[in-house]
Amino acid sequence: MFAVLNIHCLDKSGIVADVTRLIFEVGGNILDAQQHREELDSQFFMFVKFDIKNLSCSETEVKNRFQKLANLYAMTWSLNFSNQRKRLAIMVSKYDHCLYDLLLKHKYGELTADINLILSNHPDLQHVAEHFNIPFFCIERDKNNREKADLEALNLLRENNTDFIAMARYMQILTPVLLDAFPNKIINVHHGFLPAFKGAKPYHQAYEKGVKLIGASSHYATEELDMGPLIEQETARVDHSHCVDDLIRLGRSIESKVLTEAVKAHSEDRIIVFKNRTIVFS
Amino acid sequence: MFAVLNIHCLDKSGIVADVTRLIFEVGGNILDAQQHREELDSQFFMFVKFDIKNLSCSETEVKNRFQKLANLYAMTWSLNFSNQRKRLAIMVSKYDHCLYDLLLKHKYGELTADINLILSNHPDLQHVAEHFNIPFFCIERDKNNREKADLEALNLLRENNTDFIAMARYMQILTPVLLDAFPNKIINVHHGFLPAFKGAKPYHQAYEKGVKLIGASSHYATEELDMGPLIEQETARVDHSHCVDDLIRLGRSIESKVLTEAVKAHSEDRIIVFKNRTIVFS
Amino acid sequence: MFAVLNIHCLDKSGIVADVTRLIFEVGGNILDAQQHREELDSQFFMFVKFDIKNLSCSETEVKNRFQKLANLYAMTWSLNFSNQRKRLAIMVSKYDHCLYDLLLKHKYGELTADINLILSNHPDLQHVAEHFNIPFFCIERDKNNREKADLEALNLLRENNTDFIAMARYMQILTPVLLDAFPNKIINVHHGFLPAFKGAKPYHQAYEKGVKLIGASSHYATEELDMGPLIEQETARVDHSHCVDDLIRLGRSIESKVLTEAVKAHSEDRIIVFKNRTIVFS
Amino acid sequence: MFAVLNIHCLDKSGIVADVTRLIFEVGGNILDAQQHREELDSQFFMFVKFDIKNLSCSETEVKNRFQKLANLYAMTWSLNFSNQRKRLAIMVSKYDHCLYDLLLKHKYGELTADINLILSNHPDLQHVAEHFNIPFFCIERDKNNREKADLEALNLLRENNTDFIAMARYMQILTPVLLDAFPNKIINVHHGFLPAFKGAKPYHQAYEKGVKLIGASSHYATEELDMGPLIEQETARVDHSHCVDDLIRLGRSIESKVLTEAVKAHSEDRIIVFKNRTIVFS
Repeated sequence: MFAVLNIHCLDKSGIVADVTRLIFEVGGNILDAQQHREELDSQFFMFVKFDIKNLSCSETEVKNRFQKLANLYAMTWSLNFSNQRKRLAIMVSKYDHCLYDLLLKHKYGELTADINLILSNHPDLQHVAEHFNIPFFCIERDKNNREKADLEALNLLRENNTDFIAMARYMQILTPVLLDAFPNKIINVHHGFLPAFKGAKPYHQAYEKGVKLIGASSHYATEELDMGPLIEQETARVDHSHCVDDLIRLGRSIESKVLTEAVKAHSEDRIIVFKNRTIVFS
Repeated sequence: MFAVLNIHCLDKSGIVADVTRLIFEVGGNILDAQQHREELDSQFFMFVKFDIKNLSCSETEVKNRFQKLANLYAMTWSLNFSNQRKRLAIMVSKYDHCLYDLLLKHKYGELTADINLILSNHPDLQHVAEHFNIPFFCIERDKNNREKADLEALNLLRENNTDFIAMARYMQILTPVLLDAFPNKIINVHHGFLPAFKGAKPYHQAYEKGVKLIGASSHYATEELDMGPLIEQETARVDHSHCVDDLIRLGRSIESKVLTEAVKAHSEDRIIVFKNRTIVFS
Repeated sequence: MFAVLNIHCLDKSGIVADVTRLIFEVGGNILDAQQHREELDSQFFMFVKFDIKNLSCSETEVKNRFQKLANLYAMTWSLNFSNQRKRLAIMVSKYDHCLYDLLLKHKYGELTADINLILSNHPDLQHVAEHFNIPFFCIERDKNNREKADLEALNLLRENNTDFIAMARYMQILTPVLLDAFPNKIINVHHGFLPAFKGAKPYHQAYEKGVKLIGASSHYATEELDMGPLIEQETARVDHSHCVDDLIRLGRSIESKVLTEAVKAHSEDRIIVFKNRTIVFS
Repeated sequence: MFAVLNIHCLDKSGIVADVTRLIFEVGGNILDAQQHREELDSQFFMFVKFDIKNLSCSETEVKNRFQKLANLYAMTWSLNFSNQRKRLAIMVSKYDHCLYDLLLKHKYGELTADINLILSNHPDLQHVAEHFNIPFFCIERDKNNREKADLEALNLLRENNTDFIAMARYMQILTPVLLDAFPNKIINVHHGFLPAFKGAKPYHQAYEKGVKLIGASSHYATEELDMGPLIEQETARVDHSHCVDDLIRLGRSIESKVLTEAVKAHSEDRIIVFKNRTIVFS
């Protein structure tokens, strides 16, 4: 039983003392506290995880007291309690490697989120969903019905109280219908070392260029394709002997890794976005 | 201008609030704060770096106030101010790669310590010391005069107000004369992936074993050879095609890296030792 | 359609020319050729992969001609044709991460072997076998019936024409009944950075020691526990904040990786064992 | 005493047999042989290193015999004997980290080339050259005298029989005067993960983008800035806490590494360029 506090405001002396004092006063015991300053903009960011088993007041009361403090410093903030796990929806197409990785990590208890549904534009991976006992939905989607499909998806996601979304190689460009409904809550994985090799066929681009490392990048999906705030990146060594198919094969493990790491960080409230960049507390 | 506070005590609710409050009250502004708990032993460790340019009282006064707080919680603590840089002595034998790495990083301003002297049991590397304008001393040392040589070294180190020591491939086993005078202040580098391949000729041992990764390890020197608290470790990939000389060659860069990282961490007061293990704040 | 030739003999001038000439004469086209010399022992090792679609004689004829050449140089050799895929048996206990990795890589076509059966001492993972349509067998095994259980396993493996075995965290010590029947054909994974942390509870040992990198090692199982020829090793960075459970969690991915890599290398005839060390062609 | 043969031609059955036969006939003993095929273009590339201590004819005779074989297959080829070490010129500006790395590796005997001169557009690093006893030359260079400066440099390089050049953070754009005189013989290092962050201030670009890994890339300098064939790339992990100066600091070691690796590969005749990509034998 713990709570996680995220804070963002203009930097000012005394914030840390005031925040930690408040946590002490409501009966919390700090388990982890991290902070970050952006020197150029005088911005202050903080992540605090505190034990709440000896809380001396209700969760609502805690939130009310934080609101007062937040007003003093003009903070943007969030406070999440561990008994309210986030609900994750996974969107997939036909590739299953990122999906398996998320499902297995979830099964091992490594994700602090619940996977509430898997949504695909193809029926191919239904058997994987069934193997892990996760509800599977199929909404067909093509160039001509994107908005309609996304609206149908949005309804499904809302009915299931989805908190955030992982695009596990969904291979589709989302419309603002979904993007605007889940700002900084849709995590995509790109199979290139962004900002290089944006868009389609990044492994083909990488092969043509003759790179010596391939990469994968997870980021929050935004309207500008593959340009959202980067969350995690990873590389794998390649050489001249690898053809495009080899790059695709080698890329699978780093794609899975950067997506799952991003999902973990998001579900643990460790990410704050500022100026199209992420602060990812460790 | 900043100060770094290290704290170690039994875990108890309210420590973080009290410490951060005190820093606020003396006019400090927290730049970085990290903490660690050892669940099994209920131990609490904290690292706080705070800006002191607007300090409202003298450094002595700050220390006095911390002493009072420390008494309340039975803390072991230290408080170091950035204007008092640590003085580092480097001990070398004939290999120069770790020495060059420390000297270059120092030159680039990456070490927050001053290198006050280089001490060797051979005259070979005097020219390197001269190239970087560091005083060089040679004290011969063999099996029969270890204590005497270490006593001479101790006098030299004390005359020069040495705070801590880096054994940059010194290749000598120190006697308690030096070890007891600098507890947890002598950093050694071993060219093996400890605890494997302790003692002599680790690369030969690694070759015989047919390992697929070689390693290097920095640690605080203690009386038990190569068994002191580990500070940093690194590995490099090898295969069957590498002979012992290849391992020695490949090992140089990881030896330099783990020693320099350890020197950095120590000089920035980021290391606390507990039960022969290190907490290394990041 | 290709063949892979492995050669081991005393080094002598002209071997490469003779071998490549023979391959040319039987209509093979060399796709990859690698060699290795052990200087100290004057040993020569070679791996040749050659295209056989234009072979001018039968596979038996090719083998006969190689035998004559092998006699000249007193070679130990093997020649495997790609249409005869090796048959892999996987042994598991209750942990499924290495198993999933092998099954998925097999599904993606990354293994050049067929998985013919999964054998466990517990029924827990039967559902995983079923999900991937692999026959599953359970043979109970405890301290008192090891030989008997291994004999039963041996019969099962032979009935199914098993070529080699992957112990995917089988967590059991094999008896000579199996070890002698599959020399250098049983691949085990140890969750420690061998030769450190042999035997039981390596992550606990690693935690106690305070290492900064944990490791996993795949090797051929031999009678001396965890001392067989190393095939692949990998490390992952850890720090003071990781408890034993964290090490176990972080270790999963490197365990999977080193086991799957070893299985790949073995199935592609890229491993030759010499003096308890492996030559692993790339 | 060994020789290295590089071959590039259209793929055809029998090449390997013919080449290895010729080496055997002239008394060479093959130490290492690697080959590569570009499937799409049916191109064949080969690297052969062979012992020449028992050569049965003169080096000229060996070359003559290879020329005949080369004519048969329309090969592009080179044959270099280890007693004729390549002569490397290093071009630097004011940053010394890549320079030190090359000089130290050279001193340790890790480069199979001789460093014959250091050329700079500033006098700042003369003392480093002197410390390592390498001739130092300074040719001033600005926007208005590029061709003239490069012509002066070219004369200097030719007088000193320079074989290839390492731009160790030279920070200048070469003119065709030099580029055309040393095609695929000038190795540059870029402090970005190419093809991302081309041109000026790559670390600033990387910071703005919020990448989670920074990179460095060595490549052959061509007229199109930072677009020549990539030779080696490396990355280092960064996060939100790193400002631009931190990226610059962290980048030094990967810049040194990729440049030195490229210099090694070039000096050992392990690189062949094809279609703006490199084959780098290992």
